[in-house]
Amino acid sequence: MKQGIMIFGSTGNLMYKKLIPAIDHLLKKGHIAEDTKIYAMARRDCTLEDYIQDAKDNMIDDVNWDKIEPLMEYIILDVNNVEDYKTIKTQIEDDGIEDLVIYLAVPPFLFPVIAKGISESGIIQKGDQTKRIVFEKPFGEDLASAKSINKDLWQYFDEKQIYRIDHYLGKEMIQNILMVRFANKIFEQVWNHESIAYVMIVAKEEESVLSRGNYYDKIGALKDMLQSHLLQMAALVAMEAPETYTSEAIKEEKVAVLKALKLVPKDIILGQYKGYKKEDKVDPNSNTETFVFAQASIDNDRWRGVPFYFMTGKKLDEKRSEIIVQFKTSDKINTMWPEENTKNNRLQIEVAPDEGVVFQFNVKNPGLSNKLTSAKLDYCHSCQAVDNTPEAYERLLLDLLKQNRTLFTRWDEIETTWTIVEKASKRRRTLFTYDTFDDVKEEIINQYGEAFDDL
Amino acid sequence: MKQGIMIFGSTGNLMYKKLIPAIDHLLKKGHIAEDTKIYAMARRDCTLEDYIQDAKDNMIDDVNWDKIEPLMEYIILDVNNVEDYKTIKTQIEDDGIEDLVIYLAVPPFLFPVIAKGISESGIIQKGDQTKRIVFEKPFGEDLASAKSINKDLWQYFDEKQIYRIDHYLGKEMIQNILMVRFANKIFEQVWNHESIAYVMIVAKEEESVLSRGNYYDKIGALKDMLQSHLLQMAALVAMEAPETYTSEAIKEEKVAVLKALKLVPKDIILGQYKGYKKEDKVDPNSNTETFVFAQASIDNDRWRGVPFYFMTGKKLDEKRSEIIVQFKTSDKINTMWPEENTKNNRLQIEVAPDEGVVFQFNVKNPGLSNKLTSAKLDYCHSCQAVDNTPEAYERLLLDLLKQNRTLFTRWDEIETTWTIVEKASKRRRTLFTYDTFDDVKEEIINQYGEAFDDL
Repeated sequence: MKQGIMIFGSTGNLMYKKLIPAIDHLLKKGHIAEDTKIYAMARRDCTLEDYIQDAKDNMIDDVNWDKIEPLMEYIILDVNNVEDYKTIKTQIEDDGIEDLVIYLAVPPFLFPVIAKGISESGIIQKGDQTKRIVFEKPFGEDLASAKSINKDLWQYFDEKQIYRIDHYLGKEMIQNILMVRFANKIFEQVWNHESIAYVMIVAKEEESVLSRGNYYDKIGALKDMLQSHLLQMAALVAMEAPETYTSEAIKEEKVAVLKALKLVPKDIILGQYKGYKKEDKVDPNSNTETFVFAQASIDNDRWRGVPFYFMTGKKLDEKRSEIIVQFKTSDKINTMWPEENTKNNRLQIEVAPDEGVVFQFNVKNPGLSNKLTSAKLDYCHSCQAVDNTPEAYERLLLDLLKQNRTLFTRWDEIETTWTIVEKASKRRRTLFTYDTFDDVKEEIINQYGEAFDDL
Repeated sequence: MKQGIMIFGSTGNLMYKKLIPAIDHLLKKGHIAEDTKIYAMARRDCTLEDYIQDAKDNMIDDVNWDKIEPLMEYIILDVNNVEDYKTIKTQIEDDGIEDLVIYLAVPPFLFPVIAKGISESGIIQKGDQTKRIVFEKPFGEDLASAKSINKDLWQYFDEKQIYRIDHYLGKEMIQNILMVRFANKIFEQVWNHESIAYVMIVAKEEESVLSRGNYYDKIGALKDMLQSHLLQMAALVAMEAPETYTSEAIKEEKVAVLKALKLVPKDIILGQYKGYKKEDKVDPNSNTETFVFAQASIDNDRWRGVPFYFMTGKKLDEKRSEIIVQFKTSDKINTMWPEENTKNNRLQIEVAPDEGVVFQFNVKNPGLSNKLTSAKLDYCHSCQAVDNTPEAYERLLLDLLKQNRTLFTRWDEIETTWTIVEKASKRRRTLFTYDTFDDVKEEIINQYGEAFDDL
């Protein structure tokens, strides 16, 4: 079946920095057929040659243009013009495309208008799963706008034709969570309130808001990161075992646990980095948070009493995304080694920039002493196969072509996560200002009365 | 308090290859005071100079004789001559020794006579714990002889003055077992029949019987290795948590679990390596086993239904001693990944030649596949502190000087382990002959109907 990949917003960063390199890798590995067509759609009036030059100027990776260029068409369109969609439809038919992925790498306010054009022109007919449409995050700016967008989409398409992207779900270690949990007797057995003290989900960024001020200032960290990536990670860590390892069974369990998850509004810490108000395209009186630390509880038998913490923010000490599963103190440690100051067991699932699993446990201090010491077992996932760990977008694009929905979010996941975040953000917003990560730590200690190890 | 270390059998291999290097290390690290006296006792008529020359000729390690020689006396004695003991007593008093460790590095048949001499001469008075006596393994050659030796010793000494050596207990990773088990919530929680499929305790040797034919042919692998080292390891793996991390509390629990442990006589495999009968000082019609594979059951709530396997032998494919804790299949793996051929979780406690912990678990195969693969987390204990991992004898000698009894076996441990082995060895002895380790594997598969992974 001849495939087509059509990308709206193809003069944007996502196209240049993620999608083209992903297509390049998939071509190299033979996952994309050589007769595939790639339609780069944008408003800018230029030739394919100019477009490719612009792409080259803005890309980080080297890609094999000799392979990509022959597959590519650059199509100029006005997203509001019905006639433009009809022209596209004719071209697709002329090209003999039988299987089509339409990728909307555009801001959410454009979702409805493009969806409408695609539907009304007949490029995608409702129910025909050989044609699929993909929406980039964020899916809406709040619960109401997400609902409104979704209502439109459901007019035009079946849920099974709609793919909502959360690129975190394409990351290797995120996919790994369910395998680590359910393919290992030892973790399966201890994955509950009897053994686990808390779970912490971290996505720290070193960078500032950069050129995204215009978008970011309207959204903030809570909606930009917590509603999507962080809650998705929490769902995978906390969900019950799905009946089968299939997309729908997994989503059932994710939604079930998200419905039981509540953020504790009074414990949410919001911060803004010093100098944020002076950033390009940011309101000089902005009250937008660039940092969140939040606590959630999950009201079910497995997790009752186990806090889930979330931390994300810009301009922090390092770029790091990870899941920390902190175990309780062993029952015997206080009677058997009362004088020892030991660390509890910890499982760290490292998502970025390193990918791996670190297990921290206690052993005898080597030598003639009888003391305990903390050791780390380290599994480096990305080291296992150099050149083999795919970028998230490579994975997601391949799944789109194969109609594998596991790593895309279903509407009820989106609805539930927006509901969680909205409920939590109704309190009066007070922001602390931070300059260094020590300021952040201090604020957390002030609020929670305790330091978390190795934040 | 001025200390003395008196070694009987000091022209033997144990003295040259283990005790002198251990003393050297302890001196270097400042654990033995510079005014300590070392009395090397033997029958051979020679000077201290000659003795040291003989030691040098037979040693493997380099030691700092400049430090050791000034502390050392070479004393010629006839172990049957009461007068000789009296002379020694006078010398110790003249040297001002207040704290004395007497180490019997001699065959067990000499234990009673030397014990008698030491007691009757008053070198050690019953109940005075500043004077202690140490017995090398084997403590007896069967239950009856062990009982008989022990009966003699209890005439002369209190149990608290008696130190029975099992040098395996001095090894770092053996000491580590209780810490790994009880200082880690995650292992504490899964250490039972619900999660563990089986435990295997392995001590493979590459070497033949070498020069020990005379001794070994009377004893065999079951008594030489299983009764002591292997059952000691099993006790540490299987015991309940002691109330405190003290010698007596640990021994209570070790004895309790050993009393619940039974070898299954019909499943014991005994083997003899090809060519054993032609070894020096071995009976040409010898029926002695050089290999044992045995299965034990432990009749208590924690371990009901979990087989403990033991394997030890000479002339095998490698020198390796380890404890394998094999976990059951995860509950979900068959429904979630029915087509995957996964390995179960396994914790390997490596005792020799490497020291460490290896944890085998399942993760996602890196890359674009959705398959599982087996990964190993590896903690190298001996790598943590080069030069810091003490030899077993260094550890044991230090504990002797400090009156720390944890790593020495109490009489009821010896009695219980001899009872276990005697009960199991009453069946008719049939030996298979092996040339390579593949022969051994084949025999195990014949008997048990299954292959054990990575034997």
